Amino acid sequence: MPQNQHLLDNIAIILLEPKYPENIGSAARAAWNMGISRIIVVAKEYPDHGRMAKLATHNALALIDTMEFHESLADALKPFSQVIGTTARRGRHRLPGNSPREVMKKILPLLPANQIAFLFGPEDRGLTNDDLKYCQLRSAIPTADFSSLNLAQAVAIHCYEIFHAVVHEQKDITPAPKIATSHEIENMYTYMEDSLSQIDFLQDKSHTYYMRNIRQFFSRIRLESRETNLIRGICRQFLKHES
Amino acid sequence: MPQNQHLLDNIAIILLEPKYPENIGSAARAAWNMGISRIIVVAKEYPDHGRMAKLATHNALALIDTMEFHESLADALKPFSQVIGTTARRGRHRLPGNSPREVMKKILPLLPANQIAFLFGPEDRGLTNDDLKYCQLRSAIPTADFSSLNLAQAVAIHCYEIFHAVVHEQKDITPAPKIATSHEIENMYTYMEDSLSQIDFLQDKSHTYYMRNIRQFFSRIRLESRETNLIRGICRQFLKHES
Repeated sequence: MPQNQHLLDNIAIILLEPKYPENIGSAARAAWNMGISRIIVVAKEYPDHGRMAKLATHNALALIDTMEFHESLADALKPFSQVIGTTARRGRHRLPGNSPREVMKKILPLLPANQIAFLFGPEDRGLTNDDLKYCQLRSAIPTADFSSLNLAQAVAIHCYEIFHAVVHEQKDITPAPKIATSHEIENMYTYMEDSLSQIDFLQDKSHTYYMRNIRQFFSRIRLESRETNLIRGICRQFLKHES
Repeated sequence: MPQNQHLLDNIAIILLEPKYPENIGSAARAAWNMGISRIIVVAKEYPDHGRMAKLATHNALALIDTMEFHESLADALKPFSQVIGTTARRGRHRLPGNSPREVMKKILPLLPANQIAFLFGPEDRGLTNDDLKYCQLRSAIPTADFSSLNLAQAVAIHCYEIFHAVVHEQKDITPAPKIATSHEIENMYTYMEDSLSQIDFLQDKSHTYYMRNIRQFFSRIRLESRETNLIRGICRQFLKHES
């Protein structure tokens, strides 16, 4: 068992609507090789077990058998305090994001006390802006010419960087406290959205735009649970007062 | 085109007897993504083009079409001055080798003036000791529990480290001079072997053992062409004198 296995256990690989079950198997194999055992698939239907198992090979089969399955991304993300959205460096108008190595520097202090998810989009189109709204960080593997790797290779490179950082760089890190989970954060946003709609700050046309900006703002702050409660409390009180 | 493309052009990925042509395609795609365009396959038969192309995807197809093919590993390696043998951290009695990141630190100074090959063995058994005799360096991807990655993932992680080093770390490097190629080195060993057999230093039983030790010794020195010529000259003179 590798050093710092308890930290690797705080990491999950989430595959959103993967098209080919073989890629889940191949990703599981890469994860297993790097000491990561939590695989979550978000999809409309449970993927074909045989096709997953074929590429997982014998060793990573346990990861397929214990794999979590969700139909909704929001549900899958609930326990996680940081969600890293992995993207190709393709879009011209999209923020480029950090390299996996830079992401790991930001993630390492959080690992002892928080659950962290790396989110991978479907093979053909990657993560949409709507998927990315749940992410506090983005990770883009540096490549030549705006190209993109295949899904399992992108998972392999991320797991490799995670393993490298956790095993070789963790010792110099000052651990950060426990921060709010996606579940708590999303609850806070729901209250906030209701309040801001109530006062007509959010209107049909600007709704998505402003909420995305608010999310971007809050994702730069690492809110603790009690802080999300505080903000939610203010919104609730405000709504009660208005109605 | 990425920065330092001319340095990436000095790197080749060599796949020795890959069992599945799909893995060649997948490896080519990973290489292409990281700006590496030279793929060499060493095998008994030319691999099925359709099966390679399927996983190379459109972009990396050019790499498959311009792929070099050799039946002998020694022939394939001739132009390269450093050959890095990639191994899994499996064998207990085998030297563990460096991580790809450590290997890149050693390789970077050589890149401006030398051709470098990364050698990958077959999916099932990896490189044998006989294959590894051509390698001056070994690279082992750190993994949990002595596991091994699949071929294309191992290629992807190596290409990722190569690209990262060449694009981000090359600027601080003092370039090393041109050193001897595998062709020159192997010629030198042939003369050396003849000489040492002639004086009965190499006998049937100890032959492989001593030659491996001599190779290990010389692979730690970065011989220049003129130095291999000097050693070959001494051996030739010695043989002439003896006979």
